[in-house]
Amino acid sequence: MTDYAGIAQSLAARAQAAAEILRAAPTAQKDAFLRRLADALEAHQSQILARNRLDMGAGRDRGLTAALLDRLELDEARIAGIAQQVRDVARLPDPVGALTPWQKQSSGIEVARMRVPLGVVLMVYESRPNVTVDTAALCLKAGNAVILRGGKEAFQTNQALSDLVRQALRDEGLPDDGAVFVDDTARDLLYRLLEQSGRIDLAIPRGGTSLIEAVDAHAKVPVLQHYQGICHVYVHQAADLDMAERITINAKVQRPGVCNAAEGLIVDEAVARAFLPRVVAELISRGVEVRGCDKTAALADGVVPAGPADFDTEFLDLTLAVKVVAGLDEALAFIAQHGSGHTESIITTDEDAAARFVRTVDASCVLHNASTRFNDGGALGLGAELGISTTKLHAYGPMGLEELCTRKFVVRGTGQTRGDVP
Amino acid sequence: MTDYAGIAQSLAARAQAAAEILRAAPTAQKDAFLRRLADALEAHQSQILARNRLDMGAGRDRGLTAALLDRLELDEARIAGIAQQVRDVARLPDPVGALTPWQKQSSGIEVARMRVPLGVVLMVYESRPNVTVDTAALCLKAGNAVILRGGKEAFQTNQALSDLVRQALRDEGLPDDGAVFVDDTARDLLYRLLEQSGRIDLAIPRGGTSLIEAVDAHAKVPVLQHYQGICHVYVHQAADLDMAERITINAKVQRPGVCNAAEGLIVDEAVARAFLPRVVAELISRGVEVRGCDKTAALADGVVPAGPADFDTEFLDLTLAVKVVAGLDEALAFIAQHGSGHTESIITTDEDAAARFVRTVDASCVLHNASTRFNDGGALGLGAELGISTTKLHAYGPMGLEELCTRKFVVRGTGQTRGDVP
Repeated sequence: MTDYAGIAQSLAARAQAAAEILRAAPTAQKDAFLRRLADALEAHQSQILARNRLDMGAGRDRGLTAALLDRLELDEARIAGIAQQVRDVARLPDPVGALTPWQKQSSGIEVARMRVPLGVVLMVYESRPNVTVDTAALCLKAGNAVILRGGKEAFQTNQALSDLVRQALRDEGLPDDGAVFVDDTARDLLYRLLEQSGRIDLAIPRGGTSLIEAVDAHAKVPVLQHYQGICHVYVHQAADLDMAERITINAKVQRPGVCNAAEGLIVDEAVARAFLPRVVAELISRGVEVRGCDKTAALADGVVPAGPADFDTEFLDLTLAVKVVAGLDEALAFIAQHGSGHTESIITTDEDAAARFVRTVDASCVLHNASTRFNDGGALGLGAELGISTTKLHAYGPMGLEELCTRKFVVRGTGQTRGDVP
Repeated sequence: MTDYAGIAQSLAARAQAAAEILRAAPTAQKDAFLRRLADALEAHQSQILARNRLDMGAGRDRGLTAALLDRLELDEARIAGIAQQVRDVARLPDPVGALTPWQKQSSGIEVARMRVPLGVVLMVYESRPNVTVDTAALCLKAGNAVILRGGKEAFQTNQALSDLVRQALRDEGLPDDGAVFVDDTARDLLYRLLEQSGRIDLAIPRGGTSLIEAVDAHAKVPVLQHYQGICHVYVHQAADLDMAERITINAKVQRPGVCNAAEGLIVDEAVARAFLPRVVAELISRGVEVRGCDKTAALADGVVPAGPADFDTEFLDLTLAVKVVAGLDEALAFIAQHGSGHTESIITTDEDAAARFVRTVDASCVLHNASTRFNDGGALGLGAELGISTTKLHAYGPMGLEELCTRKFVVRGTGQTRGDVP
């Protein structure tokens, strides 16, 4: 029987030893590693594609869906894109070592907070091989070691990519165990890894709900989750209806399969008669199935009556649930009940209503007069992200380099003691 | 059989409904509640003391230790101290709603982060009844609802105190379920509470290691831990030895039973002959048992040879483990191996050595020329704290009002969509 507990401990200990060195690695050395990695990805393109073809062949033999095979497949353009992202991360400011202003206390000590790496991050992901490189780049730039545990569908590709990451680390004089590749995708090994408290500081599952729930159920280490996005556009009675229509269509149709796409539209009764017929017609003309409450169905043509589950579903598809409300209070209550804490947008020209909505709504990103699609790291100015956390602890929303760090207190004194010297 | 799952869900749902209101409660109303609570604690002193006597009597009957009874006991001075702390919290700035500067993105949207309450905090604690009031005050000031689950030893006192918290909330027009008292201390109910993901945002255990481990083992909600403090004073070869002696004695002797007291002393070989004989003599004269490595024992009188476990033990007592090292590198490696990530201090006049120590050491608080005893919320300028987190996620070190909040992204636009409007 395989000693998964022993293997997990050994993998985590290797990453931990590397993290001790990476914690203090100079910015220039980390950035040189990233540029070298980007070059290596392009230089070794044919080897990566050969390994990727092995995964694709095995995937076809196992009958993977076309959507899964598409996520899995690499080509020259995708590799160039991955390399470009690594170069972008190299250009971002180093989050490590940043200090808040020193504050002198009555005791005479001066106190600040310094941003420092978390330590060891365990990434658990599925079939997208780009995650191997993207997360390694972000974790290492932030001074962390990363343990990469991808899905078995992408095993050959992930291994080829992580070999390049480890070689680039070695070539820049950094410990290659800054990226530890888990070369056995057995669930039991994953579960033993999730128990390595004291060696692993954070686990991040990226994938479907069943993966997240499995990680959560077995984790003894802290976990940041990226659960579903049931996001709404709320058209307030003082909305610019042309703007509301553009934003609704963008939020629903531009990329319906992503977490920050709108799944619900909420409309104030006062503008429902003016707004719903036109927006529903435009949505239907773009292939959207509109499932509406009774009032919606009475006002617009082509509306399917909404069932009880429709207001609590992440469709990830061209389906939109529409609800007419009496006003801001009912809209806030509706979002509190049905939203998933991901992304919520109000469309209004009334600044007081907007301020109340923005302050009150409990979601990782709350927008006024902008599309829900803006809730991602690039669009919000983080530079790059490693997923959108719906956990409120530590990071709420897109996780960038700063969120891959923690802050410690630093104190400088001139010999101060607390109270007397007994 | 008691339906603990149903009770837990109902308690958590009550707190969650209150949290929806508290999230948006004005600062003035929260502060008025706190001042009213402080007054009520003093006005109802005799009732509180009567209930406390019931706990004390039951505790004596059950044979609680003198130390436990001391933690449990209230008197007029302690109640006045608790009321004073509540007034201090009322005077602290409201952390909720604080905005980072707006940053305009290339899309035209402006992005900031707003500090917002976590939601519902579950406090799990033991025999100190002051925790009931302290944590309710901090959680409520930060706009959260709190579920109070104290130990059975303090049940009567905790209930009396939480009744006053709930009455003060009602009197100020705030929902009394902002403080939900768990009136059944069965472990099974605690475990079911710890499973209320989606209703409870954070659990904080305050107490001994066995309580923390039990909470950790059963929690499906995020947990912030306050584990042990194995803290060191490191006397570098360029230390001012008078300062080093004062700080060593203060860190070990002033209050040996607390987590930020020093458990270890590390001394550079170059100054060991000059420093150890004097500091060991001073420590021994204050009743400290000095357990030293071979070199320590060779240089100073009265040293007990350190056993293998001594460098990994939180003594919480007048015992100190002493290790002589070759220099900074060995000191850093020793701390990485034996420290618990709590508090570490270097004593030196060499700014380069201090900078390297402060940057490299992985602990929630790293000090230069100051006593380890400064690692608490009051001394570091947070105003008040709810424990010292040794978890790196979210809060690392003392948890004040800011750490009882999270940050959401807020966006203001003028109709921006992401990419095109399809």
